[in-house]
Amino acid sequence: MLIRAFIPAHITAFFVPVFHEEPLKAGSLGAGVNLSKGTNVFASIETGTLERHIHVAFNGEPVKREEAEITYYVAEKLVPKDFLGEVEVWQYFDFPNGYGFGNSAGGALGTALALSYAFGGTWLRAAQLAHEAEVKHKGGLGDVIGQLAGGIEVRIKPGGPGIGVTDNLFFEDYKVLVVPLGRLSTREVLDGDVVKAIEVEGRKALEELLKEPKPERMMVLARNFAEKTGLLPGELSEIARELDKVLKNPSSMIMLGKGLFALVRDEEAEKAKQLLSDMNLPYDIAEIYTERPKVGRWVG
Amino acid sequence: MLIRAFIPAHITAFFVPVFHEEPLKAGSLGAGVNLSKGTNVFASIETGTLERHIHVAFNGEPVKREEAEITYYVAEKLVPKDFLGEVEVWQYFDFPNGYGFGNSAGGALGTALALSYAFGGTWLRAAQLAHEAEVKHKGGLGDVIGQLAGGIEVRIKPGGPGIGVTDNLFFEDYKVLVVPLGRLSTREVLDGDVVKAIEVEGRKALEELLKEPKPERMMVLARNFAEKTGLLPGELSEIARELDKVLKNPSSMIMLGKGLFALVRDEEAEKAKQLLSDMNLPYDIAEIYTERPKVGRWVG
Repeated sequence: MLIRAFIPAHITAFFVPVFHEEPLKAGSLGAGVNLSKGTNVFASIETGTLERHIHVAFNGEPVKREEAEITYYVAEKLVPKDFLGEVEVWQYFDFPNGYGFGNSAGGALGTALALSYAFGGTWLRAAQLAHEAEVKHKGGLGDVIGQLAGGIEVRIKPGGPGIGVTDNLFFEDYKVLVVPLGRLSTREVLDGDVVKAIEVEGRKALEELLKEPKPERMMVLARNFAEKTGLLPGELSEIARELDKVLKNPSSMIMLGKGLFALVRDEEAEKAKQLLSDMNLPYDIAEIYTERPKVGRWVG
Repeated sequence: MLIRAFIPAHITAFFVPVFHEEPLKAGSLGAGVNLSKGTNVFASIETGTLERHIHVAFNGEPVKREEAEITYYVAEKLVPKDFLGEVEVWQYFDFPNGYGFGNSAGGALGTALALSYAFGGTWLRAAQLAHEAEVKHKGGLGDVIGQLAGGIEVRIKPGGPGIGVTDNLFFEDYKVLVVPLGRLSTREVLDGDVVKAIEVEGRKALEELLKEPKPERMMVLARNFAEKTGLLPGELSEIARELDKVLKNPSSMIMLGKGLFALVRDEEAEKAKQLLSDMNLPYDIAEIYTERPKVGRWVG
Protein backbone atom coordinates (compact mmCIF):
# COMPACT_ATOMS: atom_id res chain seq x y z
CA MET A 1 0.00 0.00 0.00
CA LEU A 2 1.36 3.40 -1.01
CA ILE A 3 -0.17 6.57 0.41
CA ARG A 4 0.66 10.09 -0.67
CA ALA A 5 0.10 13.32 1.24
CA PHE A 6 0.77 16.91 0.20
CA ILE A 7 1.23 19.67 2.80
CA PRO A 8 1.65 23.27 1.62
CA ALA A 9 4.78 25.20 2.56
CA HIS A 10 3.76 27.77 5.16
CA ILE A 11 5.45 31.13 5.70
CA THR A 12 4.70 33.07 8.87
CA ALA A 13 4.50 36.86 8.47
CA PHE A 14 4.41 37.73 12.17
CA PHE A 15 3.76 35.71 15.30
CA VAL A 16 3.48 35.57 19.05
CA PRO A 17 4.70 32.29 20.55
CA VAL A 18 2.41 30.93 23.27
CA PHE A 19 4.12 28.29 25.40
CA HIS A 20 2.28 25.71 27.52
CA GLU A 21 3.39 22.43 29.00
CA GLU A 22 0.43 20.71 27.33
CA PRO A 23 1.45 20.60 23.63
CA LEU A 24 -2.13 21.06 22.35
CA LYS A 25 -2.46 24.26 24.38
CA ALA A 26 0.87 25.56 23.09
CA GLY A 27 0.69 27.44 19.82
CA SER A 28 0.98 30.91 18.42
CA LEU A 29 -0.93 33.98 17.39
CA GLY A 30 -0.10 35.67 14.10
CA ALA A 31 -0.56 35.43 10.36
CA GLY A 32 0.92 33.50 7.49
CA VAL A 33 0.47 32.29 3.93
CA ASN A 34 0.33 28.81 2.39
CA LEU A 35 2.05 28.00 -0.91
CA SER A 36 1.18 25.68 -3.77
CA LYS A 37 4.61 24.10 -3.28
CA GLY A 38 5.60 22.35 -0.08
CA THR A 39 6.13 18.84 1.25
CA ASN A 40 5.17 15.61 -0.52
CA VAL A 41 5.15 12.54 1.73
CA PHE A 42 4.95 9.00 0.37
CA ALA A 43 4.30 6.24 2.91
CA SER A 44 4.92 2.69 1.75
CA ILE A 45 3.49 -0.06 3.96
CA GLU A 46 4.53 -3.65 3.24
CA THR A 47 3.63 -6.57 5.50
CA GLY A 48 5.17 -10.02 5.70
CA THR A 49 8.41 -9.50 7.58
CA LEU A 50 9.16 -10.95 10.99
CA GLU A 51 9.78 -7.58 12.58
CA ARG A 52 8.43 -4.04 12.70
CA HIS A 53 10.65 -1.59 10.79
CA ILE A 54 10.21 2.16 10.21
CA HIS A 55 12.52 4.00 7.83
CA VAL A 56 12.50 7.69 6.91
CA ALA A 57 14.16 9.44 3.98
CA PHE A 58 14.42 13.15 3.15
CA ASN A 59 14.65 13.99 -0.56
CA GLY A 60 15.53 10.38 -1.32
CA GLU A 61 18.29 10.14 1.32
CA PRO A 62 17.67 7.88 4.34
CA VAL A 63 17.96 9.82 7.61
CA LYS A 64 18.80 8.60 11.10
CA ARG A 65 16.33 8.90 13.98
CA GLU A 66 18.09 11.88 15.51
CA GLU A 67 17.94 13.72 12.17
CA ALA A 68 14.17 13.11 11.84
CA GLU A 69 12.95 13.12 15.43
CA ILE A 70 9.60 14.71 14.60
CA THR A 71 8.71 12.24 11.85
CA TYR A 72 9.85 9.22 13.86
CA TYR A 73 7.84 10.49 16.85
CA VAL A 74 4.70 10.55 14.68
CA ALA A 75 5.39 7.22 12.99
CA GLU A 76 6.08 5.39 16.26
CA LYS A 77 2.70 6.50 17.59
CA LEU A 78 0.73 5.45 14.48
CA VAL A 79 2.36 2.20 13.40
CA PRO A 80 0.87 -0.45 15.71
CA LYS A 81 3.38 -2.07 18.09
CA ASP A 82 2.39 -5.52 16.84
CA PHE A 83 2.72 -4.59 13.17
CA LEU A 84 5.04 -6.95 11.30
CA GLY A 85 6.29 -5.24 8.18
CA GLU A 86 8.20 -2.36 6.66
CA VAL A 87 7.00 1.21 6.87
CA GLU A 88 8.96 3.62 4.70
CA VAL A 89 8.27 7.36 4.85
CA TRP A 90 9.75 9.31 1.94
CA GLN A 91 9.54 13.10 2.33
CA TYR A 92 10.31 15.46 -0.56
CA PHE A 93 10.66 19.16 0.14
CA ASP A 94 10.21 21.88 -2.47
CA PHE A 95 12.12 24.32 -0.28
CA PRO A 96 15.27 23.73 1.79
CA ASN A 97 14.93 22.56 5.39
CA GLY A 98 15.42 25.21 8.07
CA TYR A 99 14.64 28.11 5.72
CA GLY A 100 11.26 28.91 7.34
CA PHE A 101 8.87 27.11 4.97
CA GLY A 102 7.29 24.85 7.63
CA ASN A 103 9.04 21.71 6.38
CA SER A 104 9.15 20.00 9.77
CA ALA A 105 5.40 20.55 10.15
CA GLY A 106 4.87 19.42 6.56
CA GLY A 107 6.73 16.21 7.28
CA ALA A 108 4.93 15.66 10.58
CA LEU A 109 1.44 16.37 9.22
CA GLY A 110 2.05 14.49 5.99
CA THR A 111 3.34 11.44 7.84
CA ALA A 112 0.50 11.61 10.36
CA LEU A 113 -2.18 11.85 7.66
CA ALA A 114 -0.63 9.12 5.49
CA LEU A 115 -0.13 6.64 8.33
CA SER A 116 -3.57 7.41 9.82
CA TYR A 117 -5.09 6.84 6.38
CA ALA A 118 -3.33 3.47 6.30
CA PHE A 119 -3.63 2.27 9.90
CA GLY A 120 -6.83 4.10 10.96
CA GLY A 121 -7.59 7.37 12.68
CA THR A 122 -9.08 10.71 11.80
CA TRP A 123 -7.88 14.01 10.35
CA LEU A 124 -8.06 15.83 13.69
CA ARG A 125 -6.19 13.12 15.62
CA ALA A 126 -3.49 13.04 12.96
CA ALA A 127 -3.21 16.84 13.00
CA GLN A 128 -3.05 16.96 16.79
CA LEU A 129 -0.29 14.33 16.82
CA ALA A 130 1.69 16.31 14.24
CA HIS A 131 1.31 19.50 16.29
CA GLU A 132 2.36 17.64 19.46
CA ALA A 133 5.48 16.30 17.69
CA GLU A 134 6.36 19.79 16.45
CA VAL A 135 5.95 21.41 19.86
CA LYS A 136 7.81 18.70 21.77
CA HIS A 137 10.79 18.87 19.41
CA LYS A 138 10.71 22.65 18.96
CA GLY A 139 10.01 22.46 15.24
CA GLY A 140 7.50 25.28 15.50
CA LEU A 141 4.24 26.34 17.15
CA GLY A 142 1.85 27.46 14.44
CA ASP A 143 2.74 25.75 11.17
CA VAL A 144 0.49 22.68 11.46
CA ILE A 145 -2.67 24.67 12.27
CA GLY A 146 -1.66 27.25 9.66
CA GLN A 147 -1.23 24.56 6.98
CA LEU A 148 -4.67 23.13 7.84
CA ALA A 149 -6.25 26.60 7.54
CA GLY A 150 -4.82 27.17 4.06
CA GLY A 151 -4.76 30.44 2.10
CA ILE A 152 -3.72 33.57 3.98
CA GLU A 153 -4.45 32.56 7.56
CA VAL A 154 -4.67 34.47 10.82
CA ARG A 155 -4.20 32.64 14.12
CA ILE A 156 -6.56 34.44 16.49
CA LYS A 157 -6.57 31.92 19.37
CA PRO A 158 -3.45 29.91 20.20
CA GLY A 159 -3.31 26.15 20.44
CA GLY A 160 -3.14 23.06 18.32
CA PRO A 161 -5.83 21.74 15.95
CA GLY A 162 -9.21 21.54 17.71
CA ILE A 163 -8.18 24.18 20.27
CA GLY A 164 -6.53 27.01 18.35
CA VAL A 165 -8.77 29.14 16.13
CA THR A 166 -7.78 30.44 12.70
CA ASP A 167 -9.38 32.92 10.34
CA ASN A 168 -8.68 33.56 6.64
CA LEU A 169 -8.30 36.76 4.63
CA PHE A 170 -9.93 37.32 1.26
CA PHE A 171 -7.44 38.10 -1.50
CA GLU A 172 -7.41 38.48 -5.27
CA ASP A 173 -4.74 37.53 -7.85
CA TYR A 174 -1.75 37.49 -5.50
CA LYS A 175 1.13 35.09 -5.83
CA VAL A 176 3.99 34.67 -3.38
CA LEU A 177 7.53 35.66 -4.32
CA VAL A 178 10.13 34.06 -2.06
CA VAL A 179 13.84 34.82 -1.73
CA PRO A 180 15.21 31.87 0.32
CA LEU A 181 18.75 32.69 1.49
CA GLY A 182 19.51 30.52 4.48
CA ARG A 183 18.70 28.77 7.74
CA LEU A 184 17.57 30.34 10.98
CA SER A 185 16.99 27.95 13.86
CA THR A 186 13.54 28.30 15.45
CA ARG A 187 15.06 26.92 18.63
CA GLU A 188 17.71 29.63 18.86
CA VAL A 189 15.36 32.53 18.24
CA LEU A 190 12.59 31.31 20.54
CA ASP A 191 15.09 30.75 23.32
CA GLY A 192 16.73 34.11 22.87
CA ASP A 193 15.84 37.39 24.65
CA VAL A 194 14.21 38.68 21.47
CA VAL A 195 11.09 36.79 22.53
CA LYS A 196 9.92 39.77 24.64
CA ALA A 197 9.99 42.10 21.60
CA ILE A 198 8.29 39.46 19.48
CA GLU A 199 5.53 39.22 22.08
CA VAL A 200 4.84 42.96 22.14
CA GLU A 201 5.16 43.63 18.40
CA GLY A 202 3.33 40.46 17.43
CA ARG A 203 0.27 41.24 19.54
CA LYS A 204 0.19 44.78 18.18
CA ALA A 205 0.41 43.51 14.61
CA LEU A 206 -2.46 41.06 15.13
CA GLU A 207 -4.66 43.69 16.73
CA GLU A 208 -4.04 46.03 13.80
CA LEU A 209 -4.62 43.35 11.20
CA LEU A 210 -7.97 42.40 12.73
CA LYS A 211 -9.07 46.05 12.42
CA GLU A 212 -8.25 46.02 8.70
CA PRO A 213 -8.09 42.36 7.65
CA LYS A 214 -6.48 42.77 4.24
CA PRO A 215 -3.40 41.09 2.71
CA GLU A 216 -1.86 44.50 1.93
CA ARG A 217 -2.21 45.50 5.57
CA MET A 218 -0.67 42.18 6.67
CA MET A 219 2.49 42.89 4.66
CA VAL A 220 2.91 46.39 6.11
CA LEU A 221 2.46 44.99 9.63
CA ALA A 222 4.82 42.08 8.91
CA ARG A 223 7.62 44.35 7.72
CA ASN A 224 7.13 46.58 10.74
CA PHE A 225 7.23 43.51 13.02
CA ALA A 226 10.46 42.26 11.39
CA GLU A 227 12.12 45.63 11.81
CA LYS A 228 10.86 46.49 15.30
CA THR A 229 11.84 43.08 16.75
CA GLY A 230 15.30 43.37 15.29
CA LEU A 231 14.84 40.05 13.56
CA LEU A 232 15.47 41.57 10.12
CA PRO A 233 19.24 41.51 9.57
CA GLY A 234 20.95 44.33 7.62
CA GLU A 235 21.67 42.17 4.60
CA LEU A 236 17.98 41.25 4.20
CA SER A 237 16.86 44.77 4.94
CA GLU A 238 18.87 46.07 2.01
CA ILE A 239 17.33 43.56 -0.39
CA ALA A 240 13.89 44.40 0.98
CA ARG A 241 14.44 48.09 0.30
CA GLU A 242 15.44 47.30 -3.30
CA LEU A 243 12.32 45.22 -3.72
CA ASP A 244 10.24 48.08 -2.29
CA LYS A 245 11.15 50.08 -5.39
CA VAL A 246 9.46 47.60 -7.75
CA LEU A 247 6.68 46.21 -5.58
CA LYS A 248 3.44 47.80 -4.46
CA ASN A 249 3.32 45.92 -1.16
CA PRO A 250 6.37 45.79 1.12
CA SER A 251 8.23 42.49 1.24
CA SER A 252 9.07 41.07 4.62
CA MET A 253 11.17 38.47 6.37
CA ILE A 254 10.25 34.80 6.41
CA MET A 255 9.57 33.98 10.09
CA LEU A 256 11.77 32.07 10.82
CA GLY A 257 14.36 31.78 8.11
CA LYS A 258 17.00 33.87 6.41
CA GLY A 259 14.83 35.00 3.52
CA LEU A 260 12.18 37.36 2.25
CA PHE A 261 8.69 36.92 0.84
CA ALA A 262 6.23 39.24 -0.86
CA LEU A 263 2.68 39.15 -2.23
CA VAL A 264 2.94 40.10 -5.89
CA ARG A 265 0.72 40.46 -8.91
CA ASP A 266 1.83 39.15 -12.28
CA GLU A 267 2.93 42.49 -13.70
CA GLU A 268 5.10 43.24 -10.63
CA ALA A 269 6.59 39.75 -10.52
CA GLU A 270 8.53 40.27 -13.75
CA LYS A 271 10.26 43.41 -12.49
CA ALA A 272 11.09 41.77 -9.17
CA LYS A 273 12.53 38.68 -10.88
CA GLN A 274 14.71 40.90 -13.06
CA LEU A 275 15.93 42.82 -10.03
CA LEU A 276 16.75 39.63 -8.08
CA SER A 277 18.57 38.15 -11.08
CA ASP A 278 20.62 41.30 -11.40
CA MET A 279 21.45 40.96 -7.68
CA ASN A 280 22.31 37.32 -8.31
CA LEU A 281 19.84 36.14 -5.68
CA PRO A 282 17.76 32.92 -5.74
CA TYR A 283 13.99 33.32 -5.91
CA ASP A 284 10.85 31.35 -6.59
CA ILE A 285 7.18 32.15 -7.17
CA ALA A 286 4.27 30.05 -5.96
CA GLU A 287 0.49 30.32 -5.98
CA ILE A 288 -1.34 30.80 -2.70
CA TYR A 289 -2.66 27.36 -1.71
CA THR A 290 -6.24 27.70 -0.47
CA GLU A 291 -7.16 24.03 -0.31
CA ARG A 292 -6.74 21.51 2.50
CA PRO A 293 -3.69 19.27 2.70
CA LYS A 294 -4.19 16.17 0.52
CA VAL A 295 -3.95 12.52 1.45
CA GLY A 296 -4.96 9.40 -0.42
CA ARG A 297 -3.88 6.14 -1.94
CA TRP A 298 -1.11 6.71 -4.51
CA VAL A 299 -1.32 4.61 -7.64
CA GLY A 300 1.59 6.60 -9.18
CA MET B 1 -18.73 43.88 -9.36
CA LEU B 2 -19.95 40.28 -9.53
CA ILE B 3 -18.89 37.78 -6.89
CA ARG B 4 -19.59 34.09 -6.97
CA ALA B 5 -19.60 31.62 -4.06
CA PHE B 6 -20.13 27.86 -4.05
CA ILE B 7 -21.27 26.04 -0.90
CA PRO B 8 -21.56 22.23 -0.95
CA ALA B 9 -24.88 20.60 -0.19
CA HIS B 10 -24.57 19.01 3.24
CA ILE B 11 -26.47 15.93 4.41
CA THR B 12 -26.55 15.11 8.12
CA ALA B 13 -26.41 11.39 8.96
CA PHE B 14 -27.18 11.72 12.67
CA PHE B 15 -27.18 14.64 15.08
CA VAL B 16 -27.75 15.96 18.57
CA PRO B 17 -29.16 19.50 18.64
CA VAL B 18 -27.50 21.71 21.24
CA PHE B 19 -29.54 24.82 21.99
CA HIS B 20 -28.13 28.00 23.54
CA GLU B 21 -29.44 31.54 23.64
CA GLU B 22 -26.10 32.75 22.23
CA PRO B 23 -26.25 31.66 18.57
CA LEU B 24 -22.50 30.96 18.33
CA LYS B 25 -22.76 28.57 21.28
CA ALA B 26 -25.74 26.82 19.75
CA GLY B 27 -24.91 24.03 17.34
CA SER B 28 -25.00 20.27 17.09
CA LEU B 29 -23.01 17.10 17.52
CA GLY B 30 -23.15 14.45 14.85
CA ALA B 31 -21.84 13.52 11.42
CA GLY B 32 -22.57 14.40 7.82
CA VAL B 33 -21.26 14.46 4.28
CA ASN B 34 -20.64 17.30 1.80
CA LEU B 35 -21.55 16.95 -1.90
CA SER B 36 -19.96 18.28 -5.07
CA LYS B 37 -23.37 19.81 -5.89
CA GLY B 38 -24.99 22.43 -3.71
CA THR B 39 -25.67 26.18 -3.70
CA ASN B 40 -24.22 28.72 -6.11
CA VAL B 41 -24.57 32.32 -5.00
CA PHE B 42 -23.95 35.27 -7.31
CA ALA B 43 -23.80 38.72 -5.68
CA SER B 44 -24.00 41.69 -8.01
CA ILE B 45 -23.01 45.05 -6.51
CA GLU B 46 -23.72 48.19 -8.53
CA THR B 47 -23.26 51.69 -7.17
CA GLY B 48 -24.67 54.97 -8.41
CA THR B 49 -28.28 54.96 -7.26
CA LEU B 50 -29.70 57.39 -4.72
CA GLU B 51 -30.80 54.66 -2.35
CA ARG B 52 -29.65 51.37 -0.82
CA HIS B 53 -31.47 48.38 -2.31
CA ILE B 54 -31.05 44.66 -1.58
CA HIS B 55 -32.83 42.06 -3.73
CA VAL B 56 -32.73 38.29 -3.41
CA ALA B 57 -33.75 35.64 -5.94
CA PHE B 58 -33.96 31.85 -5.62
CA ASN B 59 -33.36 29.89 -8.82
CA GLY B 60 -33.93 33.04 -10.86
CA GLU B 61 -37.20 34.01 -9.13
CA PRO B 62 -37.19 37.13 -6.92
CA VAL B 63 -38.30 36.28 -3.36
CA LYS B 64 -39.86 38.51 -0.72
CA ARG B 65 -38.11 39.20 2.59
CA GLU B 66 -40.29 36.80 4.56
CA GLU B 67 -39.43 34.02 2.08
CA ALA B 68 -35.68 34.64 2.44
CA GLU B 69 -35.33 35.78 6.05
CA ILE B 70 -31.92 34.15 6.53
CA THR B 71 -30.35 35.65 3.42
CA TYR B 72 -31.79 39.10 4.08
CA TYR B 73 -30.55 38.91 7.69
CA VAL B 74 -27.01 38.28 6.42
CA ALA B 75 -27.18 40.90 3.67
CA GLU B 76 -28.53 43.62 5.96
CA LYS B 77 -25.59 43.11 8.29
CA LEU B 78 -22.93 43.21 5.55
CA VAL B 79 -24.14 45.90 3.16
CA PRO B 80 -23.11 49.18 4.79
CA LYS B 81 -26.04 51.36 5.92
CA ASP B 82 -24.67 54.29 3.90
CA PHE B 83 -24.18 52.25 0.74
CA LEU B 84 -25.93 53.85 -2.26
CA GLY B 85 -26.50 51.18 -4.88
CA GLU B 86 -28.13 47.93 -5.82
CA VAL B 87 -27.13 44.63 -4.24
CA GLU B 88 -28.63 41.59 -5.92
CA VAL B 89 -28.14 38.11 -4.47
CA TRP B 90 -29.01 35.30 -6.87
CA GLN B 91 -29.01 31.82 -5.27
CA TYR B 92 -29.19 28.65 -7.38
CA PHE B 93 -29.84 25.35 -5.64
CA ASP B 94 -28.91 21.97 -7.11
CA PHE B 95 -31.35 20.27 -4.75
CA PRO B 96 -34.87 21.37 -3.75
CA ASN B 97 -35.32 23.62 -0.71
CA GLY B 98 -36.50 21.92 2.48
CA TYR B 99 -35.32 18.47 1.39
CA GLY B 100 -32.44 18.34 3.91
CA PHE B 101 -29.50 19.39 1.71
CA GLY B 102 -28.48 22.42 3.81
CA ASN B 103 -29.77 24.94 1.27
CA SER B 104 -30.58 27.63 3.83
CA ALA B 105 -27.05 27.36 5.22
CA GLY B 106 -25.65 27.32 1.68
CA GLY B 107 -27.52 30.53 0.91
CA ALA B 108 -26.50 32.15 4.18
CA LEU B 109 -22.83 31.17 3.94
CA GLY B 110 -22.60 31.92 0.23
CA THR B 111 -24.17 35.35 0.70
CA ALA B 112 -21.99 36.09 3.73
CA LEU B 113 -18.78 35.11 1.91
CA ALA B 114 -19.68 36.96 -1.28
CA LEU B 115 -20.72 40.20 0.44
CA SER B 116 -17.75 40.06 2.84
CA TYR B 117 -15.47 39.58 -0.16
CA ALA B 118 -17.04 42.69 -1.70
CA PHE B 119 -17.51 44.96 1.31
CA GLY B 120 -14.72 43.69 3.59
CA GLY B 121 -14.49 41.14 6.38
CA THR B 122 -12.96 37.74 6.93
CA TRP B 123 -13.92 34.12 6.37
CA LEU B 124 -14.57 33.45 10.05
CA ARG B 125 -16.71 36.54 10.57
CA ALA B 126 -18.74 35.69 7.47
CA ALA B 127 -19.16 32.08 8.63
CA GLN B 128 -20.19 33.15 12.13
CA LEU B 129 -22.78 35.55 10.71
CA ALA B 130 -24.20 32.80 8.50
CA HIS B 131 -24.41 30.43 11.48
CA GLU B 132 -26.10 33.15 13.57
CA ALA B 133 -28.66 33.75 10.82
CA GLU B 134 -29.39 30.01 10.56
CA VAL B 135 -29.81 29.55 14.30
CA LYS B 136 -31.95 32.65 14.79
CA HIS B 137 -34.31 31.65 11.99
CA LYS B 138 -34.29 27.92 12.78
CA GLY B 139 -32.75 26.98 9.45
CA GLY B 140 -30.47 24.47 11.15
CA LEU B 141 -27.72 24.10 13.75
CA GLY B 142 -24.83 22.27 12.15
CA ASP B 143 -24.87 22.85 8.39
CA VAL B 144 -22.63 25.93 8.21
CA ILE B 145 -19.83 24.43 10.28
CA GLY B 146 -20.31 21.12 8.47
CA GLN B 147 -19.99 22.81 5.07
CA LEU B 148 -16.80 24.56 6.17
CA ALA B 149 -15.33 21.23 7.34
CA GLY B 150 -15.95 19.55 3.99
CA GLY B 151 -15.69 15.84 3.19
CA ILE B 152 -17.24 13.41 5.68
CA GLU B 153 -17.30 15.53 8.83
CA VAL B 154 -17.91 14.73 12.47
CA ARG B 155 -19.05 17.49 14.83
CA ILE B 156 -17.36 16.61 18.14
CA LYS B 157 -17.90 19.90 20.00
CA PRO B 158 -21.06 21.95 19.43
CA GLY B 159 -21.10 25.60 18.43
CA GLY B 160 -20.66 27.86 15.49
CA PRO B 161 -17.47 28.45 13.50
CA GLY B 162 -14.57 29.33 15.81
CA ILE B 163 -16.25 27.58 18.76
CA GLY B 164 -17.51 24.24 17.53
CA VAL B 165 -14.92 21.60 16.63
CA THR B 166 -15.16 19.27 13.65
CA ASP B 167 -13.15 16.23 12.61
CA ASN B 168 -13.02 14.43 9.25
CA LEU B 169 -13.05 10.76 8.31
CA PHE B 170 -10.72 9.22 5.75
CA PHE B 171 -12.55 7.52 2.87
CA GLU B 172 -11.74 6.00 -0.49
CA ASP B 173 -13.71 5.99 -3.76
CA TYR B 174 -17.15 6.66 -2.29
CA LYS B 175 -19.80 8.73 -4.01
CA VAL B 176 -23.13 9.78 -2.53
CA LEU B 177 -26.39 8.42 -3.90
CA VAL B 178 -29.38 10.55 -2.89
CA VAL B 179 -33.11 9.81 -3.20
CA PRO B 180 -34.79 13.19 -2.54
CA LEU B 181 -38.53 12.66 -2.03
CA GLY B 182 -39.87 15.64 -0.09
CA ARG B 183 -39.74 18.32 2.54
CA LEU B 184 -39.46 17.91 6.28
CA SER B 185 -39.47 21.11 8.32
CA THR B 186 -36.52 21.37 10.69
CA ARG B 187 -38.67 23.63 12.84
CA GLU B 188 -41.40 21.04 13.29
CA VAL B 189 -39.06 18.16 14.13
CA LEU B 190 -36.85 20.14 16.52
CA ASP B 191 -39.89 21.45 18.33
CA GLY B 192 -41.52 18.06 18.59
CA ASP B 193 -41.18 15.55 21.45
CA VAL B 194 -38.88 13.39 19.31
CA VAL B 195 -36.01 15.61 20.42
CA LYS B 196 -35.46 13.48 23.55
CA ALA B 197 -34.92 10.34 21.49
CA ILE B 198 -32.69 12.24 19.07
CA GLU B 199 -30.58 13.38 22.02
CA VAL B 200 -30.06 9.89 23.40
CA GLU B 201 -29.55 8.05 20.12
CA GLY B 202 -27.43 10.84 18.64
CA ARG B 203 -24.95 10.85 21.50
CA LYS B 204 -24.70 7.06 21.39
CA ALA B 205 -24.04 7.15 17.65
CA LEU B 206 -21.29 9.74 18.01
CA GLU B 207 -19.61 7.84 20.80
CA GLU B 208 -19.62 4.66 18.72
CA LEU B 209 -18.37 6.42 15.61
CA LEU B 210 -15.42 7.92 17.45
CA LYS B 211 -14.42 4.41 18.56
CA GLU B 212 -14.37 3.24 14.95
CA PRO B 213 -14.14 6.37 12.80
CA LYS B 214 -14.96 4.85 9.40
CA PRO B 215 -17.56 5.85 6.79
CA GLU B 216 -19.00 2.33 6.77
CA ARG B 217 -19.53 2.53 10.53
CA MET B 218 -21.15 5.96 10.16
CA MET B 219 -23.80 4.56 7.81
CA VAL B 220 -24.67 1.67 10.14
CA LEU B 221 -24.98 4.11 13.05
CA ALA B 222 -26.99 6.56 10.95
CA ARG B 223 -29.54 3.93 9.93
CA ASN B 224 -29.82 2.80 13.52
CA PHE B 225 -30.33 6.41 14.62
CA ALA B 226 -33.05 6.97 12.01
CA GLU B 227 -34.90 3.84 13.06
CA LYS B 228 -34.51 4.17 16.83
CA THR B 229 -35.65 7.82 16.87
CA GLY B 230 -38.71 6.96 14.86
CA LEU B 231 -37.74 9.58 12.30
CA LEU B 232 -37.61 7.05 9.47
CA PRO B 233 -41.18 6.81 8.08
CA GLY B 234 -42.51 3.47 6.80
CA GLU B 235 -42.43 4.54 3.17
CA LEU B 236 -38.73 5.43 3.34
CA SER B 237 -37.93 2.36 5.39
CA GLU B 238 -39.26 0.12 2.63
CA ILE B 239 -37.14 1.81 -0.02
CA ALA B 240 -34.12 1.58 2.28
CA ARG B 241 -34.65 -2.17 2.68
CA GLU B 242 -34.77 -2.58 -1.10
CA LEU B 243 -31.55 -0.61 -1.44
CA ASP B 244 -29.97 -2.81 1.23
CA LYS B 245 -30.23 -5.70 -1.19
CA VAL B 246 -27.96 -4.04 -3.76
CA LEU B 247 -25.67 -1.92 -1.55
CA LYS B 248 -22.84 -2.98 0.70
CA ASN B 249 -23.40 -0.18 3.20
CA PRO B 250 -26.87 0.56 4.56
CA SER B 251 -28.59 3.65 3.21
CA SER B 252 -30.12 6.04 5.70
CA MET B 253 -32.48 8.97 6.03
CA ILE B 254 -31.44 12.50 5.12
CA MET B 255 -31.58 14.43 8.40
CA LEU B 256 -33.82 16.40 8.00
CA GLY B 257 -35.71 15.75 4.81
CA LYS B 258 -37.99 13.12 3.30
CA GLY B 259 -35.25 11.23 1.49
CA LEU B 260 -32.47 8.71 1.64
CA PHE B 261 -28.75 8.79 1.00
CA ALA B 262 -26.05 6.16 0.72
CA LEU B 263 -22.28 5.93 0.23
CA VAL B 264 -21.73 3.89 -2.91
CA ARG B 265 -18.89 2.68 -5.07
CA ASP B 266 -19.18 2.84 -8.83
CA GLU B 267 -20.03 -0.81 -9.36
CA GLU B 268 -22.86 -0.65 -6.79
CA ALA B 269 -24.23 2.64 -8.12
CA GLU B 270 -25.41 1.07 -11.38
CA LYS B 271 -27.49 -1.57 -9.62
CA ALA B 272 -29.00 1.00 -7.26
CA LYS B 273 -29.89 3.34 -10.14
CA GLN B 274 -31.61 0.48 -11.94
CA LEU B 275 -33.56 -0.44 -8.82
CA LEU B 276 -34.68 3.15 -8.21
CA SER B 277 -35.70 3.57 -11.85
CA ASP B 278 -37.75 0.41 -11.61
CA MET B 279 -39.39 1.86 -8.49
CA ASN B 280 -39.96 5.08 -10.40
CA LEU B 281 -38.08 7.10 -7.78
CA PRO B 282 -35.93 10.22 -8.37
CA TYR B 283 -32.24 9.91 -7.56
CA ASP B 284 -28.95 11.69 -8.09
CA ILE B 285 -25.29 10.88 -7.54
CA ALA B 286 -22.64 13.36 -6.42
CA GLU B 287 -18.98 13.22 -5.50
CA ILE B 288 -17.96 13.86 -1.91
CA TYR B 289 -16.76 17.47 -1.77
CA THR B 290 -13.57 17.69 0.30
CA GLU B 291 -12.57 21.25 -0.49
CA ARG B 292 -13.51 24.50 1.21
CA PRO B 293 -16.47 26.58 0.00
CA LYS B 294 -15.37 28.85 -2.85
CA VAL B 295 -15.67 32.60 -3.19
CA GLY B 296 -14.15 35.00 -5.67
CA ARG B 297 -14.74 37.58 -8.34
CA TRP B 298 -16.85 36.12 -11.17
CA VAL B 299 -15.87 37.15 -14.66
CA GLY B 300 -18.43 34.70 -16.11
